Amino acid sequence: MWRLHQFPLCPFSRAVRFALAEKGVRHELVLAYPWERGETLSRLNPAIQTPVMENGSLVLCDSSAIIEYLDETIERPPLIGGSAAERAEARRLGAWFAQRFYAEVTAPLLAERMYKRVVLRGMPDGISIRNANRAAELHLQYVDDLLDVNRWLAGPLFSIADIHAAAQISVADYLGGIDWRGHQSAKIWYSALKSRPSFRALLVDRMEGIRPPADYDKLDF
Amino acid sequence: MWRLHQFPLCPFSRAVRFALAEKGVRHELVLAYPWERGETLSRLNPAIQTPVMENGSLVLCDSSAIIEYLDETIERPPLIGGSAAERAEARRLGAWFAQRFYAEVTAPLLAERMYKRVVLRGMPDGISIRNANRAAELHLQYVDDLLDVNRWLAGPLFSIADIHAAAQISVADYLGGIDWRGHQSAKIWYSALKSRPSFRALLVDRMEGIRPPADYDKLDF
Repeated sequence: MWRLHQFPLCPFSRAVRFALAEKGVRHELVLAYPWERGETLSRLNPAIQTPVMENGSLVLCDSSAIIEYLDETIERPPLIGGSAAERAEARRLGAWFAQRFYAEVTAPLLAERMYKRVVLRGMPDGISIRNANRAAELHLQYVDDLLDVNRWLAGPLFSIADIHAAAQISVADYLGGIDWRGHQSAKIWYSALKSRPSFRALLVDRMEGIRPPADYDKLDF
Repeated sequence: MWRLHQFPLCPFSRAVRFALAEKGVRHELVLAYPWERGETLSRLNPAIQTPVMENGSLVLCDSSAIIEYLDETIERPPLIGGSAAERAEARRLGAWFAQRFYAEVTAPLLAERMYKRVVLRGMPDGISIRNANRAAELHLQYVDDLLDVNRWLAGPLFSIADIHAAAQISVADYLGGIDWRGHQSAKIWYSALKSRPSFRALLVDRMEGIRPPADYDKLDF
């Protein structure tokens, strides 16, 4: 059986868990905090990052590479489907959220509201959090714009773009970084995701020592 | 015909140009400096980043998404080939160089030795450059380690991993950030790439106002 090395607030692990659940792949979760630089994680992934997916001698790292692997080896449902151009758009937007949204929103929120609280036991930096909140606002606006013309973020098909976006947004939301007011389209899209069993399972998880806002896992928010 | 919006020291544009040349795709280069936030680039790519590949109404952004598109639409030579596991390894290492090497080496060198010189006309920060050089050293060591067991970076096949690695390393090398001494395996690999016409064409390019080291485009370095 697959073993997934991850921790509850790792947005990249969430993306892989979402994809695994969509594809119906049984797997076991193994808790790994990258900052502890444990022997197992360091041996499996020279980047010392989660997620790592392991099955016997096969070891897969990098969330996008893992999702591509799942999509190549398990046909249904497609996560990168449609024409070559549609697949390129799904990958562009997947990278947008996994890299850009992560750098501007999720990473600073994780640094200030998770790492400082749980590991360093220090005070969060208000300016950094405000900048992350402001960036989140622009990204939600972009989500609204995309949904004005598309059923899902990258087009008519649910895709890796929705997976990476939902994974990043859900971590930012857990850390109080998302203000849904004024983002009706994004809210409807996220509500539809919340009602998928594959994604709902993620929202049950809690990170020790940090509580999400009251509406975090509610369908009505 | 495809039009590629790029600039000579953009490592992601170099990766796409390398892939285009490997696949034998005719294209036209359009010069675009992202920091000028020109009207065309902003309209084509909301990230306001190079590269953008454009053909009539079809617009592709994100270097990895573009290379995946080329690999799906043009069969030979494969750039992400082999088994699903081998493809996952190529994608993992492609992301390693496009994201990690870029963040630790190429981005700071571009900031200090290109952007400050050409745009800001300021003094480079020595500490930032030294940290980038130190990170480059560790990455070259990793390249050596990979080549101890593989013919190419990700395995027996030339792949997107070699493309992203060569693109990033070539920009760092142009900016004086690569010390090849002690990296015999990496040097033999890079020399083999330099002798490929598809890659050699890139090394002829010059960025206005910045000269590369004397050995930069030499087969013997």
